[in-house]
Amino acid sequence: MFVVLEGIEGSGKTTLLGGLEEGLREDGHAVVVTREPGGSRIGEAIRELFLSHSVALEPLTEAFLVNAARAQHVAEVIRPALAAGRIVLCDRFVDSTLAYQGYGRGVDLHQLHAICEVATGGLEPDLVLVMDMPVSVASARLHGRLEMMDRIESENDGFHARVRQGFLALALTPRHRVLDATLPEKRLLDLALHEVRKQLSIEIS
Amino acid sequence: MFVVLEGIEGSGKTTLLGGLEEGLREDGHAVVVTREPGGSRIGEAIRELFLSHSVALEPLTEAFLVNAARAQHVAEVIRPALAAGRIVLCDRFVDSTLAYQGYGRGVDLHQLHAICEVATGGLEPDLVLVMDMPVSVASARLHGRLEMMDRIESENDGFHARVRQGFLALALTPRHRVLDATLPEKRLLDLALHEVRKQLSIEIS
Repeated sequence: MFVVLEGIEGSGKTTLLGGLEEGLREDGHAVVVTREPGGSRIGEAIRELFLSHSVALEPLTEAFLVNAARAQHVAEVIRPALAAGRIVLCDRFVDSTLAYQGYGRGVDLHQLHAICEVATGGLEPDLVLVMDMPVSVASARLHGRLEMMDRIESENDGFHARVRQGFLALALTPRHRVLDATLPEKRLLDLALHEVRKQLSIEIS
Repeated sequence: MFVVLEGIEGSGKTTLLGGLEEGLREDGHAVVVTREPGGSRIGEAIRELFLSHSVALEPLTEAFLVNAARAQHVAEVIRPALAAGRIVLCDRFVDSTLAYQGYGRGVDLHQLHAICEVATGGLEPDLVLVMDMPVSVASARLHGRLEMMDRIESENDGFHARVRQGFLALALTPRHRVLDATLPEKRLLDLALHEVRKQLSIEIS
């Protein structure tokens, strides 16, 4: 089963992913945790370029870069793990490209859909958990961290607000679940684990 | 005017490009010489990744990487130079993606056309000069150089033969001219300059 976590910067995806991994391992599942852009050697090199402050990137360049990493990630990591019967938990996937480069940067959504479709070869998540919270809350979290913000995190609140609206607009399908990311960590993990376990029981039956 | 040089590794594109630049400058033209993948800061960083022996790349990953560089190159370098009335001489463009990743690696040509169309925003060269020579001759040249061969140059002759056939198959349009790249340097430059000048007179009239 292929589970994707989506959401704006600072929404708590990484923390939730760790909790989900632990919970599913305790249930006895083989779990692969991965992320985009990244997840492969070239993918992590692309991630570094992508998030670096030292380069100016056109919106389309961003879209192609993340899809370069994605093509490798799908072929080298995700498809083999799914074929081996593992649960793949992935931090970001196609929705992030549509939300950030489409809703955020204004790249044509049809063009983005088309290039993502080529990169994934049609692979779609079975379940997408969308971590939703107001940009102001996420932004305060980011500013409270010790690390320097990357190129995307450093974008202004207007950008992140468009991205959030993008994620919500994309979430209107049966495979999406929007979670209130302002909930306490433990409650959020319980909700997310419940959704994944429910989906697993559907996949198995 | 947008002029592209295409051809397999070792076919002499770089030498011809230098001669063309000089000849056109002597004619009084403003000329911009550039290359793919590359031509911009992020493009050159992508080129380095792309040609490095240290990474394994899926054919689709290659296609997306070169198109990431291309999207930036078209927006940042080629379109502004053309808008300023300069002649752009470019070492490789879309045909290289179709020849290398399509004919060479076997990626679906329709998919490649679609993603290249997004990256270029529909920009097409006015003239494509295809440097054609037998792979054995080009290969002997490459092996005679002092530099270490990059990841693409190091591919076997069968790969380069498919790429050559790809370039020839793509050259069946009115904007393509196939040049015999085994001709003496001076003769080749005269032929190429003749073609560019002819095209310039058409563009102007």
